Amino acid sequence: MRLDAGLVFLSDSRTNAGVDAISTARKMTVFEEPGDRVMVLMTAGNLAISQSVRQLLAEGRDEKRSLWTARDMFEAATIVGDAVRAVHKRDAHALRDAGIEFNVSLIFGGQIRGERTRLFHIYAAGNFVESTPETCYFQIGEAKYGKPIVDRVVHPSLPLGEGAKCALISMDSTLKSNISVGLPLDLLVYEADSLRVTRFVTIDEKNAYFRMIRDTWGQRLRQVFGEICNPEWDSATPAEFPLARDEADRWGQPVRAKRERA
Amino acid sequence: MRLDAGLVFLSDSRTNAGVDAISTARKMTVFEEPGDRVMVLMTAGNLAISQSVRQLLAEGRDEKRSLWTARDMFEAATIVGDAVRAVHKRDAHALRDAGIEFNVSLIFGGQIRGERTRLFHIYAAGNFVESTPETCYFQIGEAKYGKPIVDRVVHPSLPLGEGAKCALISMDSTLKSNISVGLPLDLLVYEADSLRVTRFVTIDEKNAYFRMIRDTWGQRLRQVFGEICNPEWDSATPAEFPLARDEADRWGQPVRAKRERA
Repeated sequence: MRLDAGLVFLSDSRTNAGVDAISTARKMTVFEEPGDRVMVLMTAGNLAISQSVRQLLAEGRDEKRSLWTARDMFEAATIVGDAVRAVHKRDAHALRDAGIEFNVSLIFGGQIRGERTRLFHIYAAGNFVESTPETCYFQIGEAKYGKPIVDRVVHPSLPLGEGAKCALISMDSTLKSNISVGLPLDLLVYEADSLRVTRFVTIDEKNAYFRMIRDTWGQRLRQVFGEICNPEWDSATPAEFPLARDEADRWGQPVRAKRERA
Repeated sequence: MRLDAGLVFLSDSRTNAGVDAISTARKMTVFEEPGDRVMVLMTAGNLAISQSVRQLLAEGRDEKRSLWTARDMFEAATIVGDAVRAVHKRDAHALRDAGIEFNVSLIFGGQIRGERTRLFHIYAAGNFVESTPETCYFQIGEAKYGKPIVDRVVHPSLPLGEGAKCALISMDSTLKSNISVGLPLDLLVYEADSLRVTRFVTIDEKNAYFRMIRDTWGQRLRQVFGEICNPEWDSATPAEFPLARDEADRWGQPVRAKRERA
């Protein structure tokens, strides 16, 4: 999320190549030069591709064109995109021969001194889009389970702590509904203009805050669920929130298959 | 959902063949012979395939082997599976030539006199699985957004009204996060052993009950969200639910890319 107050990054660490090949791989990498730049890269998709991209970026062999020397975040995002394209050039053909899609997507954000914070979503083709005030967050990987709470809560003026809490609740919903996502989580909260990493935590099953979120959120959801009235079908008195459309066409009619008799 | 008290079916009616070809198609079909059988079919995937399957089933040309004459729900489910296979035989080759996958999935459930209610998930290959007490619901189509609330609430002893409410809340989350799902909704609640359709409603944007759900659920979610404490990073006093792992390794360390200097 890119909020007015800074950036919130959250990643899980489950990786799988089929249900019998599940392991842990952390998916967040930090590029930090304190006082000058902080950049955070998160990856989803094929782990071999993700790791190759990260390796190329960390090496930064071209002194004139690396994340360590980029003048602004847009240039940095193009460098990440170029790394994706370099891996594509090396691996995509062999992957296609093996029937495997070149599947990777990245979230990349941070701040370089002299510029605002910026956040990008980088695709497998190496192209990218930037967050805007209207769409101030990105998700990659198993994104759907956790999207509804983010859609309801996140806007640019949300404080950083609320943003971190929202990200954790969203991830908790995904953890509950999909086994391809797993602990530990890496949470990094970047305060705008700090130009260094001050708030980072790895969250495992013992983490007291995340345990509280897991317990409380599920329990309060069920409580709110219980407080909402059920639909009324048979009530003699008019319901406060009627389910029927109107009296004339009380319930509507289902689409029916007519039996054609011989 | 297959609950002890009966069955709950809910479908949307948005269909699209790309963003410039969006229209409305109802996806629930009822096969009813009052006093003898009620069967409900819901479809997802390619609309041309779904409609062909429905057409074959409604025709029931083979008097000896149709949904109108099946002795039990298992036989009925095999008849639905056979209809999927018949459409596959007719269309799959031409679809493949056009680069289109044979993509359809169905939920089929109901009751035939003399037997309990049963619920099936039928795949594009015509095979199917049946619900169990441990997994008493199926979703097809855009299933992920709405799964977390269902996972938290649904169990076989849930009353029918609560089941209907849960299905509507789940659908509301999906509607909010994905434009490929749209109103009106068809909701059918079948009371076990009634052997007729008594509770059906088509829900459009004017429906008072669904409007209440939409307003209340989002508002109460945000309220619960606000009541959960934020993570504490800088607190002088120990937090009730600490985010840090322990004092020695206070926050953990992110994976860092090291700058390799020339």
